[in-house]
Amino acid sequence: MSIETMVGGQISPWMTGGGRESDIVLSSRVRLARNLDGIPFPNRADTIVLQGVIQELGEAVPELSAATGKPYILVKMGKLTPLERYVLVEKHIISPSLAQHAESRALIVEEDAAVSIMINEEDHLRIQCMAPGLALTEAFQSADKIDDVMEARHNFGFNEQMGYLTACPTNLGTGLRASVMLHLPALGITRQLNRIVNAATQLGLAVRGLYGEGSEAAGNVFQISNQLTLGHTEQEIIDNLYSVVTQVVEHERSARCMLMRESENALSDKVWRSYGILRYARSISGQEALAMLSEVRLGIDLGIIDTKQASLFNELLIMTRPNYLQKVSGSNLLAADARDRLRADVIRSKLAGRDEEYVK
Amino acid sequence: MSIETMVGGQISPWMTGGGRESDIVLSSRVRLARNLDGIPFPNRADTIVLQGVIQELGEAVPELSAATGKPYILVKMGKLTPLERYVLVEKHIISPSLAQHAESRALIVEEDAAVSIMINEEDHLRIQCMAPGLALTEAFQSADKIDDVMEARHNFGFNEQMGYLTACPTNLGTGLRASVMLHLPALGITRQLNRIVNAATQLGLAVRGLYGEGSEAAGNVFQISNQLTLGHTEQEIIDNLYSVVTQVVEHERSARCMLMRESENALSDKVWRSYGILRYARSISGQEALAMLSEVRLGIDLGIIDTKQASLFNELLIMTRPNYLQKVSGSNLLAADARDRLRADVIRSKLAGRDEEYVK
Repeated sequence: MSIETMVGGQISPWMTGGGRESDIVLSSRVRLARNLDGIPFPNRADTIVLQGVIQELGEAVPELSAATGKPYILVKMGKLTPLERYVLVEKHIISPSLAQHAESRALIVEEDAAVSIMINEEDHLRIQCMAPGLALTEAFQSADKIDDVMEARHNFGFNEQMGYLTACPTNLGTGLRASVMLHLPALGITRQLNRIVNAATQLGLAVRGLYGEGSEAAGNVFQISNQLTLGHTEQEIIDNLYSVVTQVVEHERSARCMLMRESENALSDKVWRSYGILRYARSISGQEALAMLSEVRLGIDLGIIDTKQASLFNELLIMTRPNYLQKVSGSNLLAADARDRLRADVIRSKLAGRDEEYVK
Repeated sequence: MSIETMVGGQISPWMTGGGRESDIVLSSRVRLARNLDGIPFPNRADTIVLQGVIQELGEAVPELSAATGKPYILVKMGKLTPLERYVLVEKHIISPSLAQHAESRALIVEEDAAVSIMINEEDHLRIQCMAPGLALTEAFQSADKIDDVMEARHNFGFNEQMGYLTACPTNLGTGLRASVMLHLPALGITRQLNRIVNAATQLGLAVRGLYGEGSEAAGNVFQISNQLTLGHTEQEIIDNLYSVVTQVVEHERSARCMLMRESENALSDKVWRSYGILRYARSISGQEALAMLSEVRLGIDLGIIDTKQASLFNELLIMTRPNYLQKVSGSNLLAADARDRLRADVIRSKLAGRDEEYVK
């Protein structure tokens, strides 16, 4: 798979899998922050140093491919158009920061985009592994393996007391950030989200919207991740997050049962109306699309809508983002109203099972 | 056609025709008020007198059939259930007053329900003729013919100065009330309705909602009728109404053109969203159904929605009324929420082209 197909495709291949608790847990992610010993952190390094880092880390590509049995490629961010970079952000392959400051930044990415390694983001190395459903252990094992391959070649900055050294102190220690993406529509409808968010925060976790810090919880999609990286082992961090997520999943599940028991008719009407609007609207904002997609996904999970298109929601989450739409349109910069119309076209074609029709 | 099929059918046969200006004018109606000479008006007559009136007027049925070539039947209101009577109201075959006070009231009705003659409503005789589209002259000619047949048998109360005598002075003279039912969505969207209503009122016409006096203009459907019956000939009354209606039709038509010219995208989105909701909702109130049906009908008229189901709107106007739904359900009295669900079922089946599916 080339970077072009990675940008152009509707969805990253790894996302099509189901995974455990996949009616509620969309995906799991683990990332490790690492830095080359004795070399300034990226925000303190000049272009020559940064290029050297890319050069050195890029040499690991053949070994990564050999060790994992899957092809990896190195992509220099400066070779991509801004639009292509932002599509990668929407697909959660790179961070907004890497897209924004492309000069002397690079990406090592695995064929199906389940593993991506950002070079010269905040740290020299950000190893990120994703998996569908609730699969924190698998994602961690995958990241750990990549880490081993890299560490066999490079000396990482490490201190007996503080663990792995990172540009930002919040990442010190394990350098591990684990997170899960949860779809919590029933907790949204029954107005229990604040309670859940507060509880998770008190347990040392951070709760964010679909696109990381500062993004709103559009479409009832939330990211829960560990705050602390220091003072706990990787396993403890994973276990703690796993335990909280399992409880949130249970809460969401009982809220869904309650909705079905106490207001199935109203819920069914709500879900089908959203489906009807998505199916026929000629213009729709990103915010509204996410809200309606969330309800339709809930309807599918509860058997209100009977469809074989299980990954519909995940796909449309990506396909209705502004940069992906801009990429699809292939034309000059889309004005907001033209983008809203294209978004409606994309959704309509997708729901009608005519995938490519809108790319006329 | 029996009265049972007349009540049970989705739509009166005459309504399926198109007629002139039928994109805006749904139907035309003319009614003549007449009273038997020397017999007290219904509100002053006792049961014996009222029964005598039914008896006497009912004898005209064979002559009506012979003169028009279409079968007529006499239906005593007391023989119908209240529900059946109110379905006839929703189909505009009888007035709410005749349905409410059924005792000693009757109806003579032509096979396709284009002609209905109420006996012992406010007057002894209310001859009502309906036609699709803008067809006031045809409706008047039809009523005039019925009037001739009846007048050949009966002496009607008549005074050289005041014309035909009626129970209420507002009907004195010609006893003629002509009206048209107009669908004015574009004037609604562009907020010009008040101006139109005021102008029509100043020209001596009355403007009402879908179900007569006091009813709201749900679904942007308006009835325009003459107020004055005295001091003008029948032809003058018809001509005046015709002239005003023609102007209103022109206003609606230019409002539609303006909408298409200046905001086709927004209009198309609005129309299709309404279609999507009607097509998939599981519960819908009468008010909301009318509003959405109005937008869908506008979409059909403007070619935004391409459908062969031209009479869809007229049919669904009737099919989604409370009493018709109660009749369809065939069960005990429907609670409001069950009725809203049945309404959604009826609309959904109809739009999917599966007419009878909901009558399970």
